[in-house]
Amino acid sequence: MATLQGILADKQIKSDAESLAVWGKDWTNGFPVAPSAVVFPESNQQVQALVEYALAERVGLVPSGGRTGLSGGAVAGNGEVVVSFDRMNRILDFNPQDRLVTCQAGVITQSLQEYAAEQGLYYPVDFASAGSSQIGGNVATNAGGIKVIRYGLTRDWVAGLRVVTGSGELLDCNAGLVKNATGYDMRHLFVGSEGTLGLICEVDVRLAAQPAPQMVMVLGVPQVVDLLNVLAGFNQRLTLSAFEFFSDLALAKVRAHRELPAPFATPVAYYALLEFDEGSLDAAGEAFEYCVEKGWVVDGVVSQSQAQAAALWQLREGISESIAPFTPYKNDLSVTIQQVPEFLADVDQFVQDSYPDFEVCWYGHIGDGNLHLNILRPQHLSVEEFMAKGHAMSPKIFALVQARRGSISAEHGVGLLKRDFLNYSRSEAEIRLMKGLKELFDPAQILNPGKLLKA
Amino acid sequence: MATLQGILADKQIKSDAESLAVWGKDWTNGFPVAPSAVVFPESNQQVQALVEYALAERVGLVPSGGRTGLSGGAVAGNGEVVVSFDRMNRILDFNPQDRLVTCQAGVITQSLQEYAAEQGLYYPVDFASAGSSQIGGNVATNAGGIKVIRYGLTRDWVAGLRVVTGSGELLDCNAGLVKNATGYDMRHLFVGSEGTLGLICEVDVRLAAQPAPQMVMVLGVPQVVDLLNVLAGFNQRLTLSAFEFFSDLALAKVRAHRELPAPFATPVAYYALLEFDEGSLDAAGEAFEYCVEKGWVVDGVVSQSQAQAAALWQLREGISESIAPFTPYKNDLSVTIQQVPEFLADVDQFVQDSYPDFEVCWYGHIGDGNLHLNILRPQHLSVEEFMAKGHAMSPKIFALVQARRGSISAEHGVGLLKRDFLNYSRSEAEIRLMKGLKELFDPAQILNPGKLLKA
Repeated sequence: MATLQGILADKQIKSDAESLAVWGKDWTNGFPVAPSAVVFPESNQQVQALVEYALAERVGLVPSGGRTGLSGGAVAGNGEVVVSFDRMNRILDFNPQDRLVTCQAGVITQSLQEYAAEQGLYYPVDFASAGSSQIGGNVATNAGGIKVIRYGLTRDWVAGLRVVTGSGELLDCNAGLVKNATGYDMRHLFVGSEGTLGLICEVDVRLAAQPAPQMVMVLGVPQVVDLLNVLAGFNQRLTLSAFEFFSDLALAKVRAHRELPAPFATPVAYYALLEFDEGSLDAAGEAFEYCVEKGWVVDGVVSQSQAQAAALWQLREGISESIAPFTPYKNDLSVTIQQVPEFLADVDQFVQDSYPDFEVCWYGHIGDGNLHLNILRPQHLSVEEFMAKGHAMSPKIFALVQARRGSISAEHGVGLLKRDFLNYSRSEAEIRLMKGLKELFDPAQILNPGKLLKA
Repeated sequence: MATLQGILADKQIKSDAESLAVWGKDWTNGFPVAPSAVVFPESNQQVQALVEYALAERVGLVPSGGRTGLSGGAVAGNGEVVVSFDRMNRILDFNPQDRLVTCQAGVITQSLQEYAAEQGLYYPVDFASAGSSQIGGNVATNAGGIKVIRYGLTRDWVAGLRVVTGSGELLDCNAGLVKNATGYDMRHLFVGSEGTLGLICEVDVRLAAQPAPQMVMVLGVPQVVDLLNVLAGFNQRLTLSAFEFFSDLALAKVRAHRELPAPFATPVAYYALLEFDEGSLDAAGEAFEYCVEKGWVVDGVVSQSQAQAAALWQLREGISESIAPFTPYKNDLSVTIQQVPEFLADVDQFVQDSYPDFEVCWYGHIGDGNLHLNILRPQHLSVEEFMAKGHAMSPKIFALVQARRGSISAEHGVGLLKRDFLNYSRSEAEIRLMKGLKELFDPAQILNPGKLLKA
């Protein structure tokens, strides 16, 4: 009979209650947490051996990175063995000519960002949880974040992968090549697969050139539709690194929470936060003038220092934390940029009609069509009552997304949270083919069972 | 019994010998050409009906775009029905906020480039056959070309696909979203699948901002290894749009063929061609000085006008045509950029040792590790004798590629030409999974049978 002790040293296996509770879940709440063990492999071979073990013992494996997920993708609720990559956290190689870093899956995003900077280069995927999320988890969820408008998603920086499939085979996908036209590119199948097709062990990450110092501008925009006009006005004149937005309600919450001054004397319905290279300041100034003349923008402020830039970013990045006490009902949605204003109006209308006492707190990456919908819990409702209403609300909101061919999970993945709603974004035929892909790469259904697709 | 006439109008069906000869092959020679008919669908529904027909009649379908392929991917040699997208050549939609163009698969690459320019935007995938290649074929082969170093490959600009699978299902993949974390991204499976998994009907293409006017610099570089030092020296100071190279032999051939002047008074072993935004001229000047001081570069010229830039590009783009009379033995290979000098030396050594009378004419996209290997036929050998030697050479050259984890087809695809050598770039496990993917998307094996994978 195969045992974990036959594969790993004692220090690589934990089964005490506290460890099971810690490594058995991610940042998502509301799902049962009941793994049978947590293991910490140190090599690709040990990962393969763990898959062999799982095949022999018919036990599920739940891959676990920084556990910052918000869809329950790393929750182990059925006696699975959690495979943590915490001990596979080394940078294995750097190739300057190709600007390639080979990372083990457990390398922390921020460590990779810092390593890149030490080489005079840049890892452009960045988001709030960069300090704890791991590169393997980023790849498994195709992490996005705040620079997508300029640099794309994690997918765009994955030049190679070493992955162990559900059959225990170690695949070496692409090996860092820029051009490789030798058939189906499985690398892109593993990106965003949430650990259901293979266990990502190593990633060849392409790095970018270091950008110029960045400047931040915050603009007051009364009309949602004008947020897109502002975006177009700036895009015509310069390259933006970020284009975020938040509502006046979101601003009020973050200001109260972090005791920040208001950017402008008079409140405005919406705010856009723009980031760009300092060399583009003149072009940004022209764009600003243009948007003011057009009446799209009524007020604006631009950072005069890195410290001010950071302070302005707080207005956007502090929102999630500042509304947490309201235990918001969250959804991470996307539509094409063009449809954002109408979609936002659809949702506002729906909430107003169905739940007049609920406040919608809008913010997100509007420059790429990604809206973070947060509905705040009114004082008079208990968390349970409110969450029940939220769950009742979901299908109706997803139907509004479906009507616009949008995504019910823009960047947070499907995991357990969105699994049963996948049909709002993927057709029956697609879901059938997805199940076929799962069957092909994980015939015994041992990899992250029940995530993304029903087991 | 199903008939083509039941699906299409007479003008959409051709079976005369001349048409079969024209649409039955691409730019690749040496494979039998014997389709049973050529059809010209005009809608996604007609494409679906053709798949239903193929399933009922158990006949193969060979998708056909601009037929500029160099690996036999669009050759019909066994009575297949050729599905030409020539009549599906309309641009269906333009969405300025998202910079999205929806094209039917038959839109010519150059038409898309021109359309983008009319919108004040830019379609950055460009290569010699842009005037006849079609967007559907570009997606099916993940076309690369001369701007990859800055803009990536076709894959990077595909925001959505409408594809008909081998089961006749029309899939709507991604619909132009930037962020969509709802499971396996099949879009990327179809990109580069050479028509073996589905028939690409429509593509949502993302456009880029129009670049500044470009300047071209040609540098004389005596040592291959210094080509990479030059690349690094420039990359540290500016963003390059292209970094190509060619040998003095390649230059001699193109100059003789097009009667062009030499760039420098004294010949140099290798030449680098660089393209960059005119705004980067000073930075490029600094990089040039630096490379001269280091002794990597012995001579250089920079374009003073768009006409001069075009003239300098001729030195690189005219090569393929100028060596055609020598019926070269061609191979399109890639390794990581870091390995280019040693790999190039490996091949030179091998050819010198085995075929001392053969001349190797090197050129290609060295900035992304893609080398076009062309071995010229000596006068004293007939085409047949020479090609026989070439075919004997291939496995030995592919073994050199394999030793460096490179690609035996950097950007020209596998088709028929490289099919039986796939194992030099893909492992047994990968090929088994690729066959599983084929089985999943085309269970009856009717889509481009025998291409990429053995039927």
